[in-house]
Amino acid sequence: MRTPQVATLEGLPNRVTVYEVGARDGLQNESTVLDVAVKIEFIERLVASGLRAVELTSFVPPSWIPQLADAEALLKGLGELAGRHPVLVPNQRGLDRALEAGVREIAIFASATESFAQRNLNRSRAESLAIFADVAQRAVASGMAVRGYVSMCFGDPWEGDVALGSVADVVEALVAMGCGEVSLGDTIGVATPGQVVALLDELARRGIGPERLAVHFHDTYGQALANTLCALQQGVTTVDASAGGLGGCPYAGSATGNLATEDLVWHLQGLGIETGVDLEALCRTSLWMAGQLGRPSPSRTVSALAASLEGPVAEA
Amino acid sequence: MRTPQVATLEGLPNRVTVYEVGARDGLQNESTVLDVAVKIEFIERLVASGLRAVELTSFVPPSWIPQLADAEALLKGLGELAGRHPVLVPNQRGLDRALEAGVREIAIFASATESFAQRNLNRSRAESLAIFADVAQRAVASGMAVRGYVSMCFGDPWEGDVALGSVADVVEALVAMGCGEVSLGDTIGVATPGQVVALLDELARRGIGPERLAVHFHDTYGQALANTLCALQQGVTTVDASAGGLGGCPYAGSATGNLATEDLVWHLQGLGIETGVDLEALCRTSLWMAGQLGRPSPSRTVSALAASLEGPVAEA
Repeated sequence: MRTPQVATLEGLPNRVTVYEVGARDGLQNESTVLDVAVKIEFIERLVASGLRAVELTSFVPPSWIPQLADAEALLKGLGELAGRHPVLVPNQRGLDRALEAGVREIAIFASATESFAQRNLNRSRAESLAIFADVAQRAVASGMAVRGYVSMCFGDPWEGDVALGSVADVVEALVAMGCGEVSLGDTIGVATPGQVVALLDELARRGIGPERLAVHFHDTYGQALANTLCALQQGVTTVDASAGGLGGCPYAGSATGNLATEDLVWHLQGLGIETGVDLEALCRTSLWMAGQLGRPSPSRTVSALAASLEGPVAEA
Repeated sequence: MRTPQVATLEGLPNRVTVYEVGARDGLQNESTVLDVAVKIEFIERLVASGLRAVELTSFVPPSWIPQLADAEALLKGLGELAGRHPVLVPNQRGLDRALEAGVREIAIFASATESFAQRNLNRSRAESLAIFADVAQRAVASGMAVRGYVSMCFGDPWEGDVALGSVADVVEALVAMGCGEVSLGDTIGVATPGQVVALLDELARRGIGPERLAVHFHDTYGQALANTLCALQQGVTTVDASAGGLGGCPYAGSATGNLATEDLVWHLQGLGIETGVDLEALCRTSLWMAGQLGRPSPSRTVSALAASLEGPVAEA
């Protein structure tokens, strides 16, 4: 399999943590509902490929997201995994389930905008933050780590442009309630690099440096990797991505796919930045998952390397 | 139609020339052979959308590239167009045809590697450069502008890694033979930003600054826009792209698509960089062309905006 030629660039980190969201953010946006055994194999293969931060599933009510209704069975079926493996939790009930399942890190999901808070969480932004604060404090008191997501940081489908200060307020609130890491999400994939740098600058002014932050770009407009590079140039070292670009419907107006992990890893390896990821094993996993879903992977790197991997994949 | 939120970034140019290659580099790599009237409408719509550097076709022998065998008819059928509209010329016979057709700018296509020179041009690199030198000198003497392409600047399918000095030698040779602009091509889409910066640095050391250069990235591994951003940070102001990502076969191992012009324009508009391009008109053109080719556009931006443009497109 071809690998990228290495040429480093000044001003970039030596090591980046790839935070893998395919099993949760990816699969919850796929129309196919997979068997729990397939998900278990997927996650175990992701970890075996060297990913050390893999979000597993979500403790939302099963009626909200049928794709992830098997969270308990999934956790029970997984063997011991190296690294971090957070589970999304939307409320106290979700936290109960997480505690019962022995989860050590949860993720909570806040909105930068009023419109998305209302539509996604059925509450005002302030109300949902109050709920998250209670969840986060209880989680921290129980010895869990908490990751915060902020969605719609760079644009919103209903409000259009999103004010920087309003995003920064939500990030500050999440840090204050105990989130050790906050992931800045471009949920609809519209951001360009000037917005990314402006938000990171504003957060730095408020005392929230890049070591507390992750970036989470969607590739809806093809901007995800360029935005990621700019975030790395600003000192961010945790990048969210989805194996095989899971969750994206590449040929639909509603395309909302995450940055594909393989495209990110190709980029980082080319820049000589350590990730610990075995790109070939990861591509094989995504090709296998594409077979499970019955459609090709939207990752350009997976697509480009598929031919050279096809034989061995068929045998796997 | 949604447009990008504008946030500028220091160290980038105020204006970028988008050099549109869809009608030549794009269509020559599509399996469908279009009617000349369709190509004429395509080019006229590209120019009407504000693109001011549009490569039209190629004067290669018709047997080499049947998709572009109608070069004379195409040029005859086109009305007066604003801006630059070069035509690719591989040899003296091609130049004869270009002169006869009243072309004012040609493009010549050299290889950075020996393997690709042999396979694409059937000659050694040195032999092909000697032929190009005669073509370029005669073109310049006839009052034509000459653009040089260098393919395989960052990787080659047969040789793997490509030596920087070897690429720079070819660029120097093209400048010496009269090329006013040289486009650095990542023909197989494998480059990452460190390679881009290293090549631009090496060329600057040899006295060839970014004002003489263009970049030409393929999105095979999803790296094209991030590489483009790095080139802009180094002072390059001319970027090659292909409307709708024409020429790419997104779901094949051989995916070799150019950077999609719409993804580039979204990026540049978001950064507040002037291009003169009307993104909506351009997207409508690419949606129309996708219909002509009978398959969706691989441009992520076209795909994302398609739903909001569909009604009017159907009426157009």
